[in-house]
Amino acid sequence: MDMQQKTSGPGPSAAPRIVIVGAGFAGLEVAKKLGRAGLEVTVVDRENHHLFQPLLYQVATAGLSATDIAEPIRKVLRGHESVTILLGEVTGIDASARRISLGDGGELAYEVLVLAAGAVDSYFGHDEWAAHAAGLKTLADAHHIRSRALLAFEEAERTTDPAEQKRLMTTAVVGGGPTGVELAGSLAELCRHTLADDFRNIAPENARILLIEAGPRLLAGFSNEASRYAEQRLRRLGVEVLTDTAVEDVRAGTIRIAGRDQAVGHTLWAAGVAASPLAAMLGAETDKGGRVLVDDTLAVPGMPGVYALGDLAHCPGPDGQPVPGLAQVAKQQGRHLGESLVRHIRDGSPLRPFRYRGRGNTAIVGRNAAVFEQGRFKVRGWFAWFAWVVVHVYLLVGFQNRVQVSIQWFWRYLTYERGARLVTEKDDLRG
Amino acid sequence: MDMQQKTSGPGPSAAPRIVIVGAGFAGLEVAKKLGRAGLEVTVVDRENHHLFQPLLYQVATAGLSATDIAEPIRKVLRGHESVTILLGEVTGIDASARRISLGDGGELAYEVLVLAAGAVDSYFGHDEWAAHAAGLKTLADAHHIRSRALLAFEEAERTTDPAEQKRLMTTAVVGGGPTGVELAGSLAELCRHTLADDFRNIAPENARILLIEAGPRLLAGFSNEASRYAEQRLRRLGVEVLTDTAVEDVRAGTIRIAGRDQAVGHTLWAAGVAASPLAAMLGAETDKGGRVLVDDTLAVPGMPGVYALGDLAHCPGPDGQPVPGLAQVAKQQGRHLGESLVRHIRDGSPLRPFRYRGRGNTAIVGRNAAVFEQGRFKVRGWFAWFAWVVVHVYLLVGFQNRVQVSIQWFWRYLTYERGARLVTEKDDLRG
Repeated sequence: MDMQQKTSGPGPSAAPRIVIVGAGFAGLEVAKKLGRAGLEVTVVDRENHHLFQPLLYQVATAGLSATDIAEPIRKVLRGHESVTILLGEVTGIDASARRISLGDGGELAYEVLVLAAGAVDSYFGHDEWAAHAAGLKTLADAHHIRSRALLAFEEAERTTDPAEQKRLMTTAVVGGGPTGVELAGSLAELCRHTLADDFRNIAPENARILLIEAGPRLLAGFSNEASRYAEQRLRRLGVEVLTDTAVEDVRAGTIRIAGRDQAVGHTLWAAGVAASPLAAMLGAETDKGGRVLVDDTLAVPGMPGVYALGDLAHCPGPDGQPVPGLAQVAKQQGRHLGESLVRHIRDGSPLRPFRYRGRGNTAIVGRNAAVFEQGRFKVRGWFAWFAWVVVHVYLLVGFQNRVQVSIQWFWRYLTYERGARLVTEKDDLRG
Repeated sequence: MDMQQKTSGPGPSAAPRIVIVGAGFAGLEVAKKLGRAGLEVTVVDRENHHLFQPLLYQVATAGLSATDIAEPIRKVLRGHESVTILLGEVTGIDASARRISLGDGGELAYEVLVLAAGAVDSYFGHDEWAAHAAGLKTLADAHHIRSRALLAFEEAERTTDPAEQKRLMTTAVVGGGPTGVELAGSLAELCRHTLADDFRNIAPENARILLIEAGPRLLAGFSNEASRYAEQRLRRLGVEVLTDTAVEDVRAGTIRIAGRDQAVGHTLWAAGVAASPLAAMLGAETDKGGRVLVDDTLAVPGMPGVYALGDLAHCPGPDGQPVPGLAQVAKQQGRHLGESLVRHIRDGSPLRPFRYRGRGNTAIVGRNAAVFEQGRFKVRGWFAWFAWVVVHVYLLVGFQNRVQVSIQWFWRYLTYERGARLVTEKDDLRG
């Protein structure tokens, strides 16, 4: 199937064929800006929904359901009639011929290519660990983690072997960054509060959660005080925090740390990300995380008409360091590139340099407990948590999502109840 | 693993070992009554959640999400400390030895067995159709149907072959009972309203929905007026209603009706149910739908201590006909058997006969359109629809579910928007 014909729009036109790969925070903002200007754009994504990734850990730990944090891409971009959406996986980029190939054999020609395909989990050269250490990037990942966590308790309730029971009730979370901290804290609350009275033969509140961090402290991107606070709060929730501890091996039912095998029910991976494999397909220069090096206008040097942004791009910041891989960065870059491109295409204005405006950094440790830092301004505890709740509800895409998530959180806050405790996939717990 | 030890409860006791198989409407009510009386009970279900099945079609058509209509069994029964819950599949019943076997090799001994495992889809001897005609019994079924329906539109948007486009946009719904009518009406509204502006190359409002019924009219369990009303409303929504039309064959991408092959994107099966295969495992007498024949106390004749109820049982009604397979019947039977058993076990009172009190019958044809009938009392249209909404929201298990579903419905009513339009599984559309 050749789609060149179709994507060239209705009739001949002087405007270039624009293709955006990825409808995450970055890609969606570019699409909105170009769509608002009436430019013909094709957005390709392999999922039919935009995902509010900062709350994905809540789906994994049964706090929210998929529909609360995901919105159909077609719905988000419905108002922009010049935007076409294709559900499909990009399998190759031929930068010299200016074509991308899709998984089903289709092709898409472009004159302007915006790469915003995000990041994938990185196992630091140990890809064989992926089968036994679940990452958290998609709704399917989150459902998988939720099913495994809940099924492990079901198995533990049934088994009569105390060692097996102990293993099933032990979870290893690898990586002490914000995602690892959020997962560990949220899992601990699930075990200690929500599930506490649900079983007869086991006590879920005795479940062990190991948070394993190779570096000397949790939340390395925050201040020392924030790290200490997070560690102390997590310990109070019963999480065993192991810093300066590198993972040596991950196998089925086991994780090797500090030279010893630790039996675990399952292992969650929040230790690192790398750029989407699409970055490598482009053939441009990349950094050691696989991110495409871009100039400060988000253009890929030496490849006219190609842009990269979000988690997939290495974009220089004011201090020489690359800007961090955060949702707010992706969103700001998307808006910037969209506006910059519209001017560039309309009247040939030069592309403008991107300046990141940090809006502060948050990590959630548990109910009532969060850290927020922006420069010298640092908050911890209840107020940071509440501010986080308000901001995240506000940032959710649809009005309906905001209302529903508010109710779920309020209800959960009052009752410790989690409505999304459903196993909808069957899974082999020995795997 | 032998679980006999565990399920006999803490220490010796004169009370019998009671096992309930199935936590649907029937099984759950029995468990609650026995639990309230402090009797030791084990509930076995292969899912971890109780499902509000009357609204399952809403999950299949992207109106509600799984968490709205499902509740963890452990949560529902949490207050009853004498109730133990096991997640597991019953694979055999040895009625003479009074033991059931579980899928993982475990066994469970009983003195009292309550079978409430419900129904499965019946393909009238054509089990090979099952692979190409999706039934609607579980959350996994509903997610599967939703993904297929949404992906079919995505494929149709991309293909350049007009015949293939037409095929992908044709859905066959087999069976003109309440489930078939609800599915067809809800799908038609999804295509005509919710998705109408979402695509560029196809017009979802031109999607064909065929509702195929072998009998002379839709909603055979209702009055002739109700049938005519449903047919007329569905036609107005664009559904092609084919009565007196038997399905002759179902294959991948095709359904054979009236001697001709009709190309379809997918086929949904709402044509008939049979009792769960557990009914046959019991070895008792069954009717032609595979349902266990029970006496009016819901006891299985010739098998002391064994009871069957809900969709799996054939229970005589006052008119000699078996009572119908409805959620309200299952609920009433569950409450009745629970109370009756408590007295029987406590003081040897004889089991009491069950009397079904019909609360009326509803079927939903679409937004603002429903039929409700109880004896001579018949309502159609807006009022029946509104009453249905109120009743179903009230019947949802948890408080949180009620609030969320109310908001979703209100929002959807105002905007025709459906929040649950997510594809979370990938599927082969050619299959």
